[in-house]
Amino acid sequence: MTAYDIPRLKTALAGLKIEENPAIVKQKSRDFFWYSPVLKRQLDHITADLVVSPKSETEVIRVLAECYALGIPVTPRGSGTGNYGQAMPLSGGVVLNLAEMNKVKAISRGSVVAEAGAVLAEIDRQTRAAVQQELRLHPSTYNTASIAGFVAGGSGGVGSINWGGLRNIGNVISMRVVTMEAAPRVMEMKGRDLMKVMHAYGTNGIITEVEMPLDAAYDWIDVIVGFDDYMKAVRFANELANQDGLLFKEIATVASPVPYDYFLRHQKFLRREQSVVLLMVAPQAMAPFLSLAELRRADICYRSDTATEAEKKGLPPVFELTWNHTTLRGLRVDPTITYLQVLYPFPDHIARIERMTKLLGDEVPGHLEFQRFDGNICASGLPIVRFTSEARLDEIIRLHEDNGCPIFNPHRYTLEEGGMKKTDAIQLAFKHEADPKGLLNPGKMIAWENPDFDLNSDKVYLFPGLQAAE
Amino acid sequence: MTAYDIPRLKTALAGLKIEENPAIVKQKSRDFFWYSPVLKRQLDHITADLVVSPKSETEVIRVLAECYALGIPVTPRGSGTGNYGQAMPLSGGVVLNLAEMNKVKAISRGSVVAEAGAVLAEIDRQTRAAVQQELRLHPSTYNTASIAGFVAGGSGGVGSINWGGLRNIGNVISMRVVTMEAAPRVMEMKGRDLMKVMHAYGTNGIITEVEMPLDAAYDWIDVIVGFDDYMKAVRFANELANQDGLLFKEIATVASPVPYDYFLRHQKFLRREQSVVLLMVAPQAMAPFLSLAELRRADICYRSDTATEAEKKGLPPVFELTWNHTTLRGLRVDPTITYLQVLYPFPDHIARIERMTKLLGDEVPGHLEFQRFDGNICASGLPIVRFTSEARLDEIIRLHEDNGCPIFNPHRYTLEEGGMKKTDAIQLAFKHEADPKGLLNPGKMIAWENPDFDLNSDKVYLFPGLQAAE
Repeated sequence: MTAYDIPRLKTALAGLKIEENPAIVKQKSRDFFWYSPVLKRQLDHITADLVVSPKSETEVIRVLAECYALGIPVTPRGSGTGNYGQAMPLSGGVVLNLAEMNKVKAISRGSVVAEAGAVLAEIDRQTRAAVQQELRLHPSTYNTASIAGFVAGGSGGVGSINWGGLRNIGNVISMRVVTMEAAPRVMEMKGRDLMKVMHAYGTNGIITEVEMPLDAAYDWIDVIVGFDDYMKAVRFANELANQDGLLFKEIATVASPVPYDYFLRHQKFLRREQSVVLLMVAPQAMAPFLSLAELRRADICYRSDTATEAEKKGLPPVFELTWNHTTLRGLRVDPTITYLQVLYPFPDHIARIERMTKLLGDEVPGHLEFQRFDGNICASGLPIVRFTSEARLDEIIRLHEDNGCPIFNPHRYTLEEGGMKKTDAIQLAFKHEADPKGLLNPGKMIAWENPDFDLNSDKVYLFPGLQAAE
Repeated sequence: MTAYDIPRLKTALAGLKIEENPAIVKQKSRDFFWYSPVLKRQLDHITADLVVSPKSETEVIRVLAECYALGIPVTPRGSGTGNYGQAMPLSGGVVLNLAEMNKVKAISRGSVVAEAGAVLAEIDRQTRAAVQQELRLHPSTYNTASIAGFVAGGSGGVGSINWGGLRNIGNVISMRVVTMEAAPRVMEMKGRDLMKVMHAYGTNGIITEVEMPLDAAYDWIDVIVGFDDYMKAVRFANELANQDGLLFKEIATVASPVPYDYFLRHQKFLRREQSVVLLMVAPQAMAPFLSLAELRRADICYRSDTATEAEKKGLPPVFELTWNHTTLRGLRVDPTITYLQVLYPFPDHIARIERMTKLLGDEVPGHLEFQRFDGNICASGLPIVRFTSEARLDEIIRLHEDNGCPIFNPHRYTLEEGGMKKTDAIQLAFKHEADPKGLLNPGKMIAWENPDFDLNSDKVYLFPGLQAAE
């Protein structure tokens, strides 16, 4: 299947936890790439040769040194909750499963240090108990995602309404990163240095430990507000997001009929005509929030603080209706849908949202996540797309771009095509330093694989090292 | 001196704490109005007939009922830290000193309930001990100001960079307010109802209890950053304020030579040419902040986390260099100066600040307080004014207004002239309901005293009931 000397690697790694069962290896070589019909076609067959699960940084170093010596690719993996194949080993080799390095190592007021594989919700359980604080940001996969996976492959999420994204300085304090060399080095990074490896999919170093800032923990109240007109929901959400004195952890909107059709457990609280605003409200903000909601004639469909135990039974938390969980719930009902990632830039975000809503109607039902962006409130979108063909999907992308709404394409597996469509010189330079043989997560950084590739052409990058489908 | 039947009032209030010593009564009839040469001329002679210090809401009700029956004005007072004569009894009568109603009544995660006279710093001592949280907002008079005085006469302060002002819904949760009637009622207010009495100087009800939201408490690090060019300091402050991932509790700028000349205890850390950025930085934000400061070649003149005990000895906290303490420190060195209050609206605040800085130079050295305002970052100014005449002061005000920078005139004792220059219909309507005889803090609400007064004329309102100077 590959030319790698796997038997020799296994001998060299004797004593480490190694998994070779092809079914399990394939399962650990996947993430949620299948949200995208494009990535599903391209990556469905991808699998590693084996999975190694180190229990310490020392074991990580040992794996990297041996793989370096044998020229075997290493693709790091946390919980595999990414959506773009971030942790998929395009050229096979080793999946470095960091899930068993999951200790919370230190908690103080304002910050926590955890090993790479620590699950976000478990970190928060411990920080809440210790200092009544919690992580600022988490994806909707809070209950399964790992901290290093979030930093290496995520961008923001619940909490971004207050703190912006992971890219903003201050949202990660420090990290330990191991290089892929003959004698791997451990680098301690903080400040601007963090940009070298953040959101780099593990292409230029293996994160073994992360220090994150904490914020006050509250018993957030889940609220769903209904409107019969989607733009009314959007305007209300925008007004809430701009209320400096009201504390929310999450503000999202979802256009009808998506909430009724796809949020099956919450269906009993909704009418099919209703678009919704999804909120996590701090308890101390409920009275002023309700006062404003009443003034705006908003329909409170659901609130967890007054719901009965019978009503709450089996309900997921509201954050599991937001971010990529909106798409996931849609896919469970209708596997033919997919989604996009859109930025509606400040200060014209409301006008642009309205334009795209009118233009695309029910082919692209709206889903917005309000967030802070360089000091201002704007919205990013993860609209549902009723998928018909890759050509039409490309056309929908072009329609957004033509209307001033940049797309972060979730149907591409490379950093550049899914991101800013330009070379990240800092990440590239660090890859030259930390992964001279280019063995870490191959195929994800175009700037490394093919520096001459024109990111502004209409061509899709095809990684030559991609495993052939059988 | 007045026509009020004070002897009869004293009999009626037997058993309550009453102060009649003229020197003490006069002292308790004053605030920091003397920052303004205009108010100093107008109000210096003002004094009440007596000071009553209730120890409970029941006693407040008794005072209000008796004063109502006798037609005697009542002016509430917290700690007297206002700057516009908010708590000065323009028509004499009773000063209702609420300083002895100062209990913290309930603390929970996210909120605190305190009696009117509780001092902000003392509230925080108790909430920090109980839940490791603190008030979101406080003025620079944190160590002496009372909670109800802050709500009734203040607008924002330290913390406004994160939470905006007191006017924003959510920054006060609920209040108990006593009306001035034959049988005073106790009203419990929350939501939009709070607007009836907030920032109304106690003209339409006596606040006896306040519930405020809390935020995570940190050991904030005081930092002073120096620049030889004021606009560089302004731009750096603005950049910090717009960093979504960095947590500050205070961001201010002060133009040279004010810091060196007036911040005497900090003089040893400064050069006279240096303009400064004054910061309170969360400990978890220090590493990324320092990284950014280095990138911008900012000169860290002082930081409390690495200062020696000898260096810190006798130093006031940085927040006591900000807001109106900047002016206070100036007045101690040069009693001829005064100040203004300016709004530089988003999104053009930096351009407007630069224009006014060039236009007025060292006659009006800049002082900015960065804050959140309707979801965006902007700056309000409390520039020092090297005072020459009231005519020139008016001219400086007009220059600001002509350049798109609204002035909140701190040289006026009325709500309207010091504020938005328009009638607050909600406050006026509530005064009709809660103070039908117009006995609460007379002379401060023009809309009540003289509904026909043209707030947009150039005329200064003169309250006919103002005590004559002797």
